[in-house]
Formats: sequence, structure tokens, C-alpha cells
Amino acid sequence: MQTELSKQLGVEHAVFGFTPFPAVAAAISRAGGFGVLGAVRYTAPDELKRDLDWIEAQVDGRPYGLDVVMPAKKVEGVTEADVEAMIPEGHRQFVKNTLAAYGVPELTVGEASGWRITGWMEQVARNQLDVAFDHPIKLLANALGSPPADVVARAHDKGVLVAALAGSARHARKHRDAGIDIVVAQGYEAGGHTGEIATMVLTPEVVEAVDPLPVLAAGGIGSGEQAAAALALGAQGVWLGSVWLTTTEAELPSPALVRKLLAAGSGDTVRSRALTGKPARQLRTAWTDAWDAPDGPGALPMPLQGLLVAEAVTRIQKYEVEPLLGTPVGQIVGRMTGERSVQAVVDDLTRGFERAVDRINRIAGRSQQ
Amino acid sequence: MQTELSKQLGVEHAVFGFTPFPAVAAAISRAGGFGVLGAVRYTAPDELKRDLDWIEAQVDGRPYGLDVVMPAKKVEGVTEADVEAMIPEGHRQFVKNTLAAYGVPELTVGEASGWRITGWMEQVARNQLDVAFDHPIKLLANALGSPPADVVARAHDKGVLVAALAGSARHARKHRDAGIDIVVAQGYEAGGHTGEIATMVLTPEVVEAVDPLPVLAAGGIGSGEQAAAALALGAQGVWLGSVWLTTTEAELPSPALVRKLLAAGSGDTVRSRALTGKPARQLRTAWTDAWDAPDGPGALPMPLQGLLVAEAVTRIQKYEVEPLLGTPVGQIVGRMTGERSVQAVVDDLTRGFERAVDRINRIAGRSQQ
Repeated sequence: MQTELSKQLGVEHAVFGFTPFPAVAAAISRAGGFGVLGAVRYTAPDELKRDLDWIEAQVDGRPYGLDVVMPAKKVEGVTEADVEAMIPEGHRQFVKNTLAAYGVPELTVGEASGWRITGWMEQVARNQLDVAFDHPIKLLANALGSPPADVVARAHDKGVLVAALAGSARHARKHRDAGIDIVVAQGYEAGGHTGEIATMVLTPEVVEAVDPLPVLAAGGIGSGEQAAAALALGAQGVWLGSVWLTTTEAELPSPALVRKLLAAGSGDTVRSRALTGKPARQLRTAWTDAWDAPDGPGALPMPLQGLLVAEAVTRIQKYEVEPLLGTPVGQIVGRMTGERSVQAVVDDLTRGFERAVDRINRIAGRSQQ
Repeated sequence: MQTELSKQLGVEHAVFGFTPFPAVAAAISRAGGFGVLGAVRYTAPDELKRDLDWIEAQVDGRPYGLDVVMPAKKVEGVTEADVEAMIPEGHRQFVKNTLAAYGVPELTVGEASGWRITGWMEQVARNQLDVAFDHPIKLLANALGSPPADVVARAHDKGVLVAALAGSARHARKHRDAGIDIVVAQGYEAGGHTGEIATMVLTPEVVEAVDPLPVLAAGGIGSGEQAAAALALGAQGVWLGSVWLTTTEAELPSPALVRKLLAAGSGDTVRSRALTGKPARQLRTAWTDAWDAPDGPGALPMPLQGLLVAEAVTRIQKYEVEPLLGTPVGQIVGRMTGERSVQAVVDDLTRGFERAVDRINRIAGRSQQ
């Protein structure tokens, strides 16, 4: 599964794997794909350095990348306390009441909530970049709009390609105009932040909009047949996130969450603002139902919602409160029915791709058998 | 573009075209595809007979089919007047107010509204079947659940294959258990009634769920690249509806509607209950916005909503009230940017398919160039 982009990056398969787990990122690159580590949970630069060093030691010179979250709009001099002060009391009470209704215990005194607003702030992302550029990363991806011009220039000086996610052709053209090298077209069915346009429609639209820039297709891709479909639509590779969540290398915060993912069908996700304030696909849970109910208070805008629910999410995960337990994941969760190693996922993917190519050749009357 | 199913049906391309217009259905079959005429607008059996006779004369023995709307639940002895009486006065007033707000004129006295509830009732569908089975149709499709067992048996006695639409694997298995021959997996991005699961995820799920029954992929397919993608996902053919709306053979009720379709982007549709009471993808208009607004009355269940809005839809179309003017259409509307003949659509599709096969072979390292 070789495209111009995969050749340029020196990987065996045009398979890009986004993951928050260093062990998964390293395993993807070792398996011949391109591992991309999500940096949002690293608020301390030395932790990111430790994990990039570790990946570096694992991949034997194979390429890998980093995904940061740099907001498109720069917010100067705003502290976490300033943002905290903008959260209405009624929303805080709604969180308390919902947690109480499900008997979710408090954290012990001094225990930190897992997800801090700081991971979403530009200065944190810039500290991450200082660490990242000291490593031989080959790709820098940004999940929130185009990164600032100086970051793009710095990446290019280092020979690092810059990728950005887009949910529409208009969005993709903005990336191209900002000097981005690769557009990740993220369809409606994807996990995490998504727009309304499905991968089948979005991929060729974005390919045409930014031609000749390479496009990676994201959303709805977990098998080799789905990868073949995305490549037929004009993508130069596939960008997978959800499928790695149930690999043996993943470090999900709770075994109950793994069980929920393995049991979920493709209809068990919802595109909800409950997690971050922007629509993000995730497991549908009693928690998303509460936020999405017509009589709920409505989610706050980003970044307020993420800050508001950070402690609640940590408590739900720590105490494995099953009805509320969720995670961002795409509609392919329906096919994630057993734990596999990252290597097995990549092997299944490349085998499925070959089967799909055989099939399409038979249909086209070009069978070589 | 040949699959086992297209060979069985004796067509050149595994391209199934659903359309309410006899001229489009005939042109699809003449172009080597399989034209399927939508019967819902035929309340008088003699009109359906006239149009099937006409198609018959056009297609020179090439196969074609009929799509009926038989409700899954049988409703005995309910008249249109009974259904009318179930519509709340507040909803009638909302329709009046919305039409008045946009200055939509009344119909002239005695003028019939275009769309009657009767087209959705089982007896009407059965009258249609009596006519259809007197013609050499090769396929009978049903848009609302599995058709009744006696209808399936009658079709099979006549050598007619039966197809049914499904938006989930569960739904598809019900069709298989009802003796259906072909499942049309209709993804989220499709025009008309759709579920939440996108074509990229739905197609392989349904293929696996009903194996070895053939599956047609619907939703998001208007180009040869999209057809190649659907076939890579395991479909035995593609089912296209939206793309024919802007063909030169189509008979849309208003030129203004054609202009709106040609101008619309992929983000200009919405999945709304405004038209029939069930979620159906259509152009987003001031009409759908009014129904979908949080302070609106909410759509009524099927078939009440369709009956409630029938006259309004006719008036909006007749007087070309642009802000309210809409039609069911899928997200591929963004690529419907110019009028083409049906033959040109099929030619573009088969050429695009060959390009996609070339592309996928290059990526797989099987290039024959």
C-alpha cells in the first residue's frame, strides 16, 4: 500500500495511526505504518521528552510524528483561573447532580483531575514543539485549524511535513493557503471532532479542493477494504484513530471501558458537545444523554466545557461508573470486537487491502487469476 | 463494472438508478445500467401502466425495475379522512403561518395538491403491483421495511428479484429473514430516508450480516471513484438516486429548484423530519429550518406529517418560493454542478471507475502500465 506520500515519508504502508499512547505509536511505526503521538495530554514538557525518547529507542530509525492542539485563535494572558471564572454556576450544579445521580465518588484530596485546560493552550503547545523539534519527527499534525505561520516555517526548516485536519473543502483550502503540506479529511463517521460530511463525499471533495496537495482520509476506516475505498476516492493514505484503542498495546484508563468498546455497535456512538464544547463523536452514554437532553443546560463553548467536565471524566474513569463511562471513538467501533496487537491490526489491514484490490480487478474485468 | 448480480440481471454496469421520472429510468437502462422507477407518486394504476408501457417501448428488452412504498405495518380500513382528523390544529396553524410569512399564494380552487397520503398506503401499493407484474420487471424494491410475505412469493413466482433498503445490519438481517434477495445499504449521507451510519461503515457491516446475499451500496455515490470505493467495501453494485435529479431527462417541478440543486454544496443538506415525519436528507431550506427550530411544533409521525405538508409543498413548488423550495437529495449534491444527460452520467461513472481501478492497482504495486 504505497503512495507518493508514503514513499516520501519512507514507510511501507500508507497507514497513519493517531494515538495518545506511546507504545501504540511506536508499534505502528515498527509495523510499517506511520505512528503519530497525540500530545494534548502532555502538560509537562519533560514527560513528552521522556516518551518521545522512548519511541525513538523503539522504532529503529523508522519515521513517526506528533499531533498537537494549537487553537487557531491566539488567546494572550488568559489563565486557567480566568477561564474557570467564566463557567456558570448552573452548569457546575448540573455536573454535581448528574454525578450524584449515579453515585460517582469524589477524588481523594490532592488527587489531580486527568485533563487540564492547559493542554489546549498555545503556550503549552509551543513548549511541546520545542521538545518535539529536538527529536527527528517527520510529521507535525494539528487538530485545531492551521498552526501559526511561524510554526509552519519552523517545521519546514527542520524538514518536517505539516498536516492539519479538515471537515470541509473550505476548511481544507484555508490549510493549503496557510502552507500546510498534508490535509487530513475527517469525515462525519470519525471519532473525536467531526463535521457533518461523510468520508465518501468529503474525501474526493477535499482531494479536488487542494490538488496537488496529498490528502489522508479519516473516519470510518478500520479495515483493509475501507482503506482501499479511501484510496480509490483519491486519498494518498488513511488516518486511523479508533481502531488502536482496543489493541493490546493501548493503555485505556479502565478495563470496563475496553469491555464497553468491544461490545458497542456502529450505532452506539453520538456526535455530542458534552466532552469539549465542539461536536465530537464518542460512545453514547448516560453522560452524553444527560448533556444532549432537551431539558439539559446545553454544553458550554470550547474551552469552557472541557474544563468544566475534566474532574468528572477523571472520577467516572477512576471509579468505572459504567453507565457514564465513554471515550471519543468513531462508528467503526462496531467492528472492534476483540483485542489485537498493533501488528495484527496492520497485518489484517494490508491483507484486507489486497483482497479488495483482487475484488475490484475482478469487477473491472482485469482479473489476473 | 460487472458483478455476479449485474450478470444475473443482464446489465452491462452494476449501476442501479432510482428515479421518480420514467424518462430517466428508461435512459439508465438504455445506458447499460438498471433503471428503477419510483412508484410512490402514482395513485392511479392507469398512469403507472401508461408509464411502464412507455419505458418498455424505450428499453429494447433491457431490464428495469420498480420501487414501491409498502409500510411494514398493515393499517386496515383507515381512510385519508381518518388520518386527516389526527392532525393537531396547532400544526395546521404552523403550516399556515410559515407559508404566510413567505407570501406563498393559495392554490386555485379545485387544484389538487401533488402528493397524497394514498401513495403510502398498502392498497395503493398492491394496485401498483398488479400493474407492475403485468410488465416484465426484473426487480421490485421496497423503501419501507420488508414487503409482506405474499408479495415476496408473488415476485419470486414471476422471476422478479426483491430488494429492500436498510440503514443498519439489524435491519438488513430482518430483510434476509423475510426472504428478500438484495439488500440496499443506505448510508447517512444518502438523500431521502436515512439512518445515522455512514456508507463507509454500513456497507461492509451489511455485507457481512447478510452474506451471501448481494448488497447494493447507497449514499454518497455519484462518481466512478465513489462507485469503486463502494465495490471495494464488498457491494455488488451501487444504487444512485440524487445524481439523476439534475440530468436533462429529469422533470423537476421547477427551474428554480434545479438552480438550487446546482448551486448547493455538500454541507447544504439536512436530515430532517419535516417532509415525511421520519428523518430524510434533503436540501436545507427556510422550511426545514422552521420545522427543526427548537421553538417549532416538531414534526408529526409518519404518515401524518406527509399529509399535513402535502399542499404546502405543492404551493411552494408551483410558485417557486425560493427560500422554502427543497427536495430530498444526498450530500453528493455538492458535486452536481451542471446538467448532464443520463448517458453522460453513466459514461463519467464508468470512466471514473476505470481511473480508480488504475489508481488502486498502482498503490498496490500491480500497475500494468
